Amino acid sequence: MGKTALRGYHLDDIAIVPSRRTRDVDDVSTVWQLDAYPFRIPCVGHPSDAIMSPSTVVALGKQGGLGVLNVEGLWCRYEDPTKVLESLAGMDDEDSVSATRRLQEAYSEPIKPELVADRVRAIRDGGVTVAVRVSPQHTLALAPVILDAGVDILVIQGTLVSAEHVSTNDEPLNLKEFIADLDLPVVVGGCTDYKTALHLMRTGAAGVIVGIGAETVLGIRVPMATAIADAAAARRDYLDETGGRYVHLIADGDIHTSGDIAKALGCGADAVMLGEPLTRCDEAPAGGAWWHPAASHPGLPRGSFGSAEEPLGSLEKLLYGPSDDPDGTLNLFGGLRRAMAKCGYRDLKEFQKVGLVLDRP
Amino acid sequence: MGKTALRGYHLDDIAIVPSRRTRDVDDVSTVWQLDAYPFRIPCVGHPSDAIMSPSTVVALGKQGGLGVLNVEGLWCRYEDPTKVLESLAGMDDEDSVSATRRLQEAYSEPIKPELVADRVRAIRDGGVTVAVRVSPQHTLALAPVILDAGVDILVIQGTLVSAEHVSTNDEPLNLKEFIADLDLPVVVGGCTDYKTALHLMRTGAAGVIVGIGAETVLGIRVPMATAIADAAAARRDYLDETGGRYVHLIADGDIHTSGDIAKALGCGADAVMLGEPLTRCDEAPAGGAWWHPAASHPGLPRGSFGSAEEPLGSLEKLLYGPSDDPDGTLNLFGGLRRAMAKCGYRDLKEFQKVGLVLDRP
Amino acid sequence: MGKTALRGYHLDDIAIVPSRRTRDVDDVSTVWQLDAYPFRIPCVGHPSDAIMSPSTVVALGKQGGLGVLNVEGLWCRYEDPTKVLESLAGMDDEDSVSATRRLQEAYSEPIKPELVADRVRAIRDGGVTVAVRVSPQHTLALAPVILDAGVDILVIQGTLVSAEHVSTNDEPLNLKEFIADLDLPVVVGGCTDYKTALHLMRTGAAGVIVGIGAETVLGIRVPMATAIADAAAARRDYLDETGGRYVHLIADGDIHTSGDIAKALGCGADAVMLGEPLTRCDEAPAGGAWWHPAASHPGLPRGSFGSAEEPLGSLEKLLYGPSDDPDGTLNLFGGLRRAMAKCGYRDLKEFQKVGLVLDRP
Amino acid sequence: MGKTALRGYHLDDIAIVPSRRTRDVDDVSTVWQLDAYPFRIPCVGHPSDAIMSPSTVVALGKQGGLGVLNVEGLWCRYEDPTKVLESLAGMDDEDSVSATRRLQEAYSEPIKPELVADRVRAIRDGGVTVAVRVSPQHTLALAPVILDAGVDILVIQGTLVSAEHVSTNDEPLNLKEFIADLDLPVVVGGCTDYKTALHLMRTGAAGVIVGIGAETVLGIRVPMATAIADAAAARRDYLDETGGRYVHLIADGDIHTSGDIAKALGCGADAVMLGEPLTRCDEAPAGGAWWHPAASHPGLPRGSFGSAEEPLGSLEKLLYGPSDDPDGTLNLFGGLRRAMAKCGYRDLKEFQKVGLVLDRP
Repeated sequence: MGKTALRGYHLDDIAIVPSRRTRDVDDVSTVWQLDAYPFRIPCVGHPSDAIMSPSTVVALGKQGGLGVLNVEGLWCRYEDPTKVLESLAGMDDEDSVSATRRLQEAYSEPIKPELVADRVRAIRDGGVTVAVRVSPQHTLALAPVILDAGVDILVIQGTLVSAEHVSTNDEPLNLKEFIADLDLPVVVGGCTDYKTALHLMRTGAAGVIVGIGAETVLGIRVPMATAIADAAAARRDYLDETGGRYVHLIADGDIHTSGDIAKALGCGADAVMLGEPLTRCDEAPAGGAWWHPAASHPGLPRGSFGSAEEPLGSLEKLLYGPSDDPDGTLNLFGGLRRAMAKCGYRDLKEFQKVGLVLDRP
Repeated sequence: MGKTALRGYHLDDIAIVPSRRTRDVDDVSTVWQLDAYPFRIPCVGHPSDAIMSPSTVVALGKQGGLGVLNVEGLWCRYEDPTKVLESLAGMDDEDSVSATRRLQEAYSEPIKPELVADRVRAIRDGGVTVAVRVSPQHTLALAPVILDAGVDILVIQGTLVSAEHVSTNDEPLNLKEFIADLDLPVVVGGCTDYKTALHLMRTGAAGVIVGIGAETVLGIRVPMATAIADAAAARRDYLDETGGRYVHLIADGDIHTSGDIAKALGCGADAVMLGEPLTRCDEAPAGGAWWHPAASHPGLPRGSFGSAEEPLGSLEKLLYGPSDDPDGTLNLFGGLRRAMAKCGYRDLKEFQKVGLVLDRP
Repeated sequence: MGKTALRGYHLDDIAIVPSRRTRDVDDVSTVWQLDAYPFRIPCVGHPSDAIMSPSTVVALGKQGGLGVLNVEGLWCRYEDPTKVLESLAGMDDEDSVSATRRLQEAYSEPIKPELVADRVRAIRDGGVTVAVRVSPQHTLALAPVILDAGVDILVIQGTLVSAEHVSTNDEPLNLKEFIADLDLPVVVGGCTDYKTALHLMRTGAAGVIVGIGAETVLGIRVPMATAIADAAAARRDYLDETGGRYVHLIADGDIHTSGDIAKALGCGADAVMLGEPLTRCDEAPAGGAWWHPAASHPGLPRGSFGSAEEPLGSLEKLLYGPSDDPDGTLNLFGGLRRAMAKCGYRDLKEFQKVGLVLDRP
Repeated sequence: MGKTALRGYHLDDIAIVPSRRTRDVDDVSTVWQLDAYPFRIPCVGHPSDAIMSPSTVVALGKQGGLGVLNVEGLWCRYEDPTKVLESLAGMDDEDSVSATRRLQEAYSEPIKPELVADRVRAIRDGGVTVAVRVSPQHTLALAPVILDAGVDILVIQGTLVSAEHVSTNDEPLNLKEFIADLDLPVVVGGCTDYKTALHLMRTGAAGVIVGIGAETVLGIRVPMATAIADAAAARRDYLDETGGRYVHLIADGDIHTSGDIAKALGCGADAVMLGEPLTRCDEAPAGGAWWHPAASHPGLPRGSFGSAEEPLGSLEKLLYGPSDDPDGTLNLFGGLRRAMAKCGYRDLKEFQKVGLVLDRP
């Protein structure tokens, strides 16, 4: 080619290679800590209304993960979104146009700041770490009400976020200044390459999200294995340039099974953000349907709607088993623990060094 | 191999890598200018009767693109091709032999020079840039009537065109002399490689079409990403050898979604020629059916007939949205604009420098 | 890998790259000459009973190709194999076990030497070049009757043939001595690599068959593009070591369309052996069913049975069109001629130099 | 990638390249000898209850292979497991959750040491080499009863076994000491890489199993061709470091046809462990259903259940033919013998040197 392009690899393109002693599964730890907040498992709930309601955020927190509520989602647009969620739960993904129109309509209702405060309070009352997601576009407008409500971790997440957004119309969000002014840890993203990851780390973020959801509509596809490994290289370089500031990488996308979780961590992620896999639990607010926040965009919806499937069991069963399904969609973190044991690693940080092999899916 | 072969990449094999700051979508321009003719979007309508009739050429022009009428198509063979188009609209692509026979029969009607003049006049009356397509074989015979009728841009397009065609029977078209004698911009093609692209540029053409439609029947397949990048290398070298003559590249083929448009431009194209994607608009002359001009060849038809599908909306909706389909087939150029914004580019020329990654589809 | 392996390419993995001037299709010649025998097209009929009967051998000869009768086939086992062929024509490939059993049963009938003589005579009376196929195992036994009957070209073809077969039981066929004693051109094969091809050339063969049919059962798969290119390298080296003896390469397998023929020749083949594609003609002896000679092996049948499909037209239409099917299965050699014209080549020998690109199918 | 990964190849990714003289199929030997025990074919029965019962272990031994009974399987949990096997034979793999639950339930019955002794005796009475499989976790507990019962070969097989297992709770099995204390040959595995294979060889094992069954749930996938070739490199190095101790490699997984067997041996294996392919014989204890021992894990079942399919014939027919199926699933070792003959090799050790080519499946 007159123009060169490097090859990118998906999680499906790689596999873990065990090449050390094995270890007892009971000796393995999956503990993850982000800033002052410890978690039993490196699991972040994706801020889609399909899985994260105030009550499932609390449920995931109780199970040792980190739930994130989207303050631009249905729970902050409707006093009681139950009917809207029920109607979405009934949509059929065969008819993607109708499902998309229903999403666009549901999200055309304005965000209500008072609901934001209510929802945050409900989560805080649940006794778990409180994290909410806001888009870069609305961060400045929604920050006051979010901070007043008292959150522990702020997630600023767009499909693709850069450290420096250029605009001739609005005063864009200056992430570095914004984060410096806050005294709570901020997670930002997504991003897909070394350079953007490094710039996002330099904003002072505690965590960077790797992956951008579904942007195939834009010709942007993210080979996750490569994206995580590149961001991990940025983390290493940033660690060096700051003399020791460690930024967490949260892998978002391409993760369906316990094996995918193991591979994402093996590529260098500190935690995974789970969306669609969590729709299979009994507690899912939309009865098992799935959609990405970008799927409700009024002019250019991106990301398919997935219609509801039978739940596989409780959230606890999804995370910790026991499994009665041989496909790796249940006991997600028991599977991770076993993979670590089979490869002889004791904790998540060590496991990032596991050997990988390129492989056809 | 005893014989060496380079690897070619399709648009599906690559993806765009955002690696800069992001930008406001409203600050992005998709303006394209070919010679003296400016266009709001880098969109050329493929001269197939399935999509380009005199009225849709005008409609596309009004929307900011460049429609092209095939002067060897049905509109210049029949006083009123409506019935022929209706009968083609009803064909089923399951039965490819019947569809092909119907095409062969429809195009066995001779071309009527007086109809050529009529159709050109109709487009001119529509108030848009007038462009017509003629095949290299018929260029010398049809040029007088075309030029008399008064066109703005002439498109000389065969499945595969070379700067020097060799024939022992006829006096072949000498493109260089022919173009030098004209005082209007000429677009020629298709071609698929550096050498042919460079030779076509040297004929004095204002634009070169990259891609050759469906020639799998001949064992010729065009990896579009590679073909565009190679032609872009030829454009660079030709720019250098002429001290500044810039020839436009129009990518024809393998483009189905807004993402594909972004990738084609990212490989180095200046504009895209859209065929099948435009069949999904309400205005499509054959009710949504699709066929390539070569599909009606009397002895060796090439290119499948695609039977009519439900329209997705008006031409305007296809080009500019709003979309209610998450697959990227609506709001084609709104999607392009958003891709440019996400990658931080302001205009099309800048966007040709965007990073690419090799990726399995 | 501790053990290294080169990558092999199939015809489907490559495509032709036009990169020269184009040429009039009427100025292109597809003439092929093997020893003293000229042919209008480089087409050899595969010696399977599914396509080559005495009458279709004559028909193919009349059309300018070279038909080959299998003297170990049904026509030399049964006085009148019509009923056997009809019963095979009715078999369903869904039930591969029944089809295989029927084949095994049909071929358990012994070969009758007097029928061999009869069949050869019938072909000779048809006024075409007479070629028959015999397996290496039966060459010594059947040679006298074949030679007495008077054939022009002898094809010694097994799934895989080596210049030196080792046996502790029988006196194996010494190809070099056998061929030296004959005064007619011999074609031998199949083979799949440089070394075996070179050794087969050194036996004095006029032609070498590249490709071995269906041996996936044995773990042997033939990437045809690589196999042809390797054998072409052997031909070049043998040409050098003999000071000018040119051995023809006949590509057998992986060829379904006119495009595949063009690619096989572009890789270096002099002619193609067509089996399954010819089953689609009206004249096919088994009504369109297809099986490879090895598919009737009593202990280890190899190669699937393909049940009869609707014929696409006469043998003449298959070879020379006109086509009314856009898939390249009709007008096979008209398509080849057009591919040569599009790439600017005048004859087959020149066309072997055409550019190739590696490409996913 | 910031992290590098080598490419791994599956058996499906490679093919055998014949490049020597051919040989009579009757001159080829498939004899394999492990320690003092000679076998007519390099075939080990996978210790899954789906195929290996006391009677099929005897039947496989009589046919010249090595059957292995799982002492942690149903035959050592139930006095008469016939009903359990029948109920499993009736399960449908469409409903993988029900099948998995039934497996988990069936294997929740405790292992009965007295049954272990009974089963070993039954096999010994059958007059064949006695081999049983035990997991590393239960080796120390079950070894006394196994050894007392008198076995010839001990197979210590987990999905993934390392020479040094680390545990803070239990005294783990020290393979090296354990094997040194025994006076019978031990086969251990599975493993997937050079390093683990080498360490397992250093435990004194007579054979090492390459392949780990189905661990995709854990993100571990084994490209078998690469795994075998890597283990063969370990064997070579171990041979050198010990001055001549040859450890046998038994390939387990990814093997479906005679061609796969040939490829596994061509990569360097000494024998193959066959599981699912043997379910197609009349004698299969679960009527043709298939499951991997790990599929019944109480908390994290791995490996799909395959519901029963029609048997293809007797075990003898599966191994030695005659075949009436062209897919290579019958006459598995007749096919191997023919592949060796086509490539000109006389015995298995020589055949490990056969040429390979990388190829898309």
